[in-house]
Amino acid sequence: MSENGFSAPKFSTTIPTGDDRERAVCERCGFIDYQNPKIVVGSVALWKEKILLCRRAIEPRKGFWTLPAGYLELGESVENGARREAWEEARARIIIERLLAVYSVPRISQVQLMFRATLESGDIDAGPESDEVGLFDWDHIPWADIAFPTVGWALRQWRESRGLAEFPPFSNPVDGL
Amino acid sequence: MSENGFSAPKFSTTIPTGDDRERAVCERCGFIDYQNPKIVVGSVALWKEKILLCRRAIEPRKGFWTLPAGYLELGESVENGARREAWEEARARIIIERLLAVYSVPRISQVQLMFRATLESGDIDAGPESDEVGLFDWDHIPWADIAFPTVGWALRQWRESRGLAEFPPFSNPVDGL
Repeated sequence: MSENGFSAPKFSTTIPTGDDRERAVCERCGFIDYQNPKIVVGSVALWKEKILLCRRAIEPRKGFWTLPAGYLELGESVENGARREAWEEARARIIIERLLAVYSVPRISQVQLMFRATLESGDIDAGPESDEVGLFDWDHIPWADIAFPTVGWALRQWRESRGLAEFPPFSNPVDGL
Repeated sequence: MSENGFSAPKFSTTIPTGDDRERAVCERCGFIDYQNPKIVVGSVALWKEKILLCRRAIEPRKGFWTLPAGYLELGESVENGARREAWEEARARIIIERLLAVYSVPRISQVQLMFRATLESGDIDAGPESDEVGLFDWDHIPWADIAFPTVGWALRQWRESRGLAEFPPFSNPVDGL
């Protein structure tokens, strides 16, 4: 018992009744600690034909360039999460246009939802997780210094989407992962 | 110390350095137990113009009709999750056509990805979480006995999507939630 009178959970790995895979189950109270993939929300956001990128101030991939994106929080819609991340990482206010892509990254149990968006203005600034933010012409994107494969996918698929009136969201490219 | 020589985690609620919201942090080792929304994957799956529905054998909403859908598991792509759920709940093999809709349900911290799909055959059968499965003409959908609002949204938006060559995925209807 801890000082507050509650026991700490005592997890062991077992297959709960009616389930078909192992979960962490508390031996004391039966609580099942389900672990599921996490959702990353982000955007390809434009200002006058230039794309917003952020240079990461934190690991992983510190110093490399990324799109504004991050984990969806409890109680948040996917659109609000993408807006929050643009603000947190680049002090940017974005207007979401539509869903550009849904990526599954099973190796790290992530699902990424990337939106096509525009900036409300060209006023941007590095937030606490960015060393630098910038607006890049397509021909000046720092391809050699992109942080994650999914950032490259989203950029290339954004480019591909510009000629399309309507389209289903993109997913992992066939040559990806 | 427990019998295996490890201490149980001792969580307290605090804002980690560099974060902006409270998390459960272990006072002993600093482990941060991030909690994030969960992903539900499912499908509107057709066989000869009829829609696959499942009558729930479990709570919540036992006895009500739903689309085959459930929580995405660790290490799984969204498409594979939707296929697995169709098999588990209706012993149905589905061919995914495209993403129909993405719903955010912030109240319960869920994001639902619903696909448009077809069945490989008309062979279906109730899995362990279903009391009954069926293929329904649009005019015979049991609207009064639908399990969840998102099921109704997906059905109506599936109907709307049939006249469209291409379209962005639907999201929460404006009159929803």
